[in-house]
Amino acid sequence: MKLPNTVIRYARETLRDLVALPSVSAEGRALPQAAQKVKELLEELGLRAEIHPTPGAPVVYAEGSGKGPILLFYNHYDVQPADPLELWESDPFTMTERNGHWYARGISDDKGELVSRLAALKWFIEEHGRLPFGVKFVIEGEEEVGSPNLEAYVREHKDRLKADAVIWEFGSVDTAGRPLVYCGLKGIVAVELRVRTAAYDLHSSLGAVVQNPIYRLSAALASLRDNDGRVLIEGFYDQVRPLSEAEERSLEAIPDESEQVAALYGVKEFLGRAKGVEFYRRLAAEPVVNINGFHSGYGGPGSKTVLPAEAFAKLDFRLVPNQEPSEVVELLRRHLDKHGFNDVEVVTLEAGEHPARSDLEATWVKQTVEALRETYGSEPIVHLSSGGSGPMYPFTHYLGTPVVSIGISYPGSRVHSPNENIRIADFERGVAAIKRALEKFAGL
Amino acid sequence: MKLPNTVIRYARETLRDLVALPSVSAEGRALPQAAQKVKELLEELGLRAEIHPTPGAPVVYAEGSGKGPILLFYNHYDVQPADPLELWESDPFTMTERNGHWYARGISDDKGELVSRLAALKWFIEEHGRLPFGVKFVIEGEEEVGSPNLEAYVREHKDRLKADAVIWEFGSVDTAGRPLVYCGLKGIVAVELRVRTAAYDLHSSLGAVVQNPIYRLSAALASLRDNDGRVLIEGFYDQVRPLSEAEERSLEAIPDESEQVAALYGVKEFLGRAKGVEFYRRLAAEPVVNINGFHSGYGGPGSKTVLPAEAFAKLDFRLVPNQEPSEVVELLRRHLDKHGFNDVEVVTLEAGEHPARSDLEATWVKQTVEALRETYGSEPIVHLSSGGSGPMYPFTHYLGTPVVSIGISYPGSRVHSPNENIRIADFERGVAAIKRALEKFAGL
Repeated sequence: MKLPNTVIRYARETLRDLVALPSVSAEGRALPQAAQKVKELLEELGLRAEIHPTPGAPVVYAEGSGKGPILLFYNHYDVQPADPLELWESDPFTMTERNGHWYARGISDDKGELVSRLAALKWFIEEHGRLPFGVKFVIEGEEEVGSPNLEAYVREHKDRLKADAVIWEFGSVDTAGRPLVYCGLKGIVAVELRVRTAAYDLHSSLGAVVQNPIYRLSAALASLRDNDGRVLIEGFYDQVRPLSEAEERSLEAIPDESEQVAALYGVKEFLGRAKGVEFYRRLAAEPVVNINGFHSGYGGPGSKTVLPAEAFAKLDFRLVPNQEPSEVVELLRRHLDKHGFNDVEVVTLEAGEHPARSDLEATWVKQTVEALRETYGSEPIVHLSSGGSGPMYPFTHYLGTPVVSIGISYPGSRVHSPNENIRIADFERGVAAIKRALEKFAGL
Repeated sequence: MKLPNTVIRYARETLRDLVALPSVSAEGRALPQAAQKVKELLEELGLRAEIHPTPGAPVVYAEGSGKGPILLFYNHYDVQPADPLELWESDPFTMTERNGHWYARGISDDKGELVSRLAALKWFIEEHGRLPFGVKFVIEGEEEVGSPNLEAYVREHKDRLKADAVIWEFGSVDTAGRPLVYCGLKGIVAVELRVRTAAYDLHSSLGAVVQNPIYRLSAALASLRDNDGRVLIEGFYDQVRPLSEAEERSLEAIPDESEQVAALYGVKEFLGRAKGVEFYRRLAAEPVVNINGFHSGYGGPGSKTVLPAEAFAKLDFRLVPNQEPSEVVELLRRHLDKHGFNDVEVVTLEAGEHPARSDLEATWVKQTVEALRETYGSEPIVHLSSGGSGPMYPFTHYLGTPVVSIGISYPGSRVHSPNENIRIADFERGVAAIKRALEKFAGL
């Protein structure tokens, strides 16, 4: 399955042009230009493309080609900020080749992934003359800032977006080079907890009579989970849907790489000493509360005998079907009140995202797995869900469509970090796998 | 007892010059300059002053004047850091007058107190022609970083420092304007607790399997005390000496200002709903653990889905006779190990200070009380101990001298905080009270 030179050249030039646009959504940079460029790329492939405004960055929508089943691609044209710039070995907005890798901000997430799909379509058309099925694209410009307008967009356009299958924005091989398929994403809701015990910081000798906000917040946080990570909020697990047999089987089929992962992260042992099935179950199928930050009082060198007036912590909950982000915040509030923490304020930081999962027995999942097996010559590893989050729910919910995530990245891609990169060989194999999946979808 | 204009002008100009030197011991700033300035001020009063090096900042020592009983002043020329700078309404190192207050870092703690004593001596000499008793000064430059070299200094110079009475570095009126006398200080030991759970920060989705250092540290902190402030470390109270009858009586004689204090600090209720005798007992006679700071992970706007690799907290223990600082650290370590927190590292930040108390029935205590009564026209309130700490123990222990603490501050002085200030009227009355105490000491 060697890529034709025309496809390789097309991909390289298209990717070079696309990463040169610094479309950083958090900084509001170059978003209309990137949307326009993406629209032109879709039109070059013979699709009808439109730029749909939203309250934030516009969505690039496209549709076209043959009748029959419809495949929808979800991608995004925005990227993470490039800083810290000094840690980049080459300019983040200039695609640079070194030792068989391409480097640039967005070279993986998500411009590389997007271009791999365009290249696969181009190749398919060159080889088969035309697309014998329908194609749609939803390419947003706010994924890196939490997709605040995407759910409303999908809901509003759900008839027009109707499709039989969705390919999600990203994908990767594992450390051993085996292809991965993700069939779901966890939901997320992020909150801040705040405690104030006095009007201003006091001398720490007053800690004999004045409550300490760090103690209060620590006690509140300690009450949320046990040492193994089990969440102690009453009702937290009530809406969790048990795994299907197919989902259980998928966990058992994952080769246990937990020891290698522990070594990579410098972790002595995982929560609950999890490994194997239990390790992957926690990552994919267990909801969890995570504390992202805690700040209060003095943090400099040595000691400062201060009694801080306030403390805050930032948390995210990672959710699984059928947990509701807003309900989890309510349960948290109820838990805090019940345990005497009514002095702990809860502020929701983002509206949150629902968890989403595709049926592992859907034809589209099976077609994808077959395409990967044939392309890579090794058994694909199917994950019922990533441990991460994203706006997959509007697609599974409003369109009722199975969604799979496959792509061109690898565990060293440094997504969101300096020196983001992909391996060119991964890219080429990823294009071939997507083209093969399109053929399966077309019944070829 | 109106201050002569010469004394007021002297005090104002001296204080202005002294606070302009940013002698922040924690940052090692301007300490030799401040020591030199203080030495010159003592010499201007006719004392023989010397700068004595220590392994840290030097001690300014002075002695002189008449024979007979000797009064020793303990003060310090160093100050706390000024940050957070943005909360200051005027430059911290420029003495600024607003609405009858003087503002600056150190205007109370301890440069204002030091200058009040120099002014009292100047006034005494102007009025009586000479000092009919001996005077000594020990003015260190490391009080705000725990006086790491003072105990050794006093021990080494204990013959030269011999005195009959000591005036301690600070003092205050209460919220009703009544003069306070403190006859002791709590001990202190400061530690840092640290937890590390991974080699570097990870994506928060990995919180499903990787331990969270904020959770571990929160749980450890929550285990140290109960919600009323009672310390739960086994053996923590074993060495606490019961109060004498005179000490118990002193607690009962304190007018209950706990409500006014609560209003001043913006506190709804005190720990254990303490008020009256119980409020003052906690402040003066109960040991306590206080958390000064907690820092880990993301603290900026909105949310960032990070799993931090490490967390740390800073604590101080306030101790009462006869607790030993080093023994308390050992008990803390034992407590953490016993409760499964052997992943929590304990680092002692400072060697600590022993608690110290003077005999409430000593003549010097009674003379001070009389001086205050005559100056303020109201009954002084005697506290067996401040809730704060300081290096009083070397003086009571090696010199065997009663120590009293009186001075020029008020409960709103915001010591160690932005907008540190004193009321000018308090300052003037404080100078008068010290001059009157000198007269009592001289038998005048």
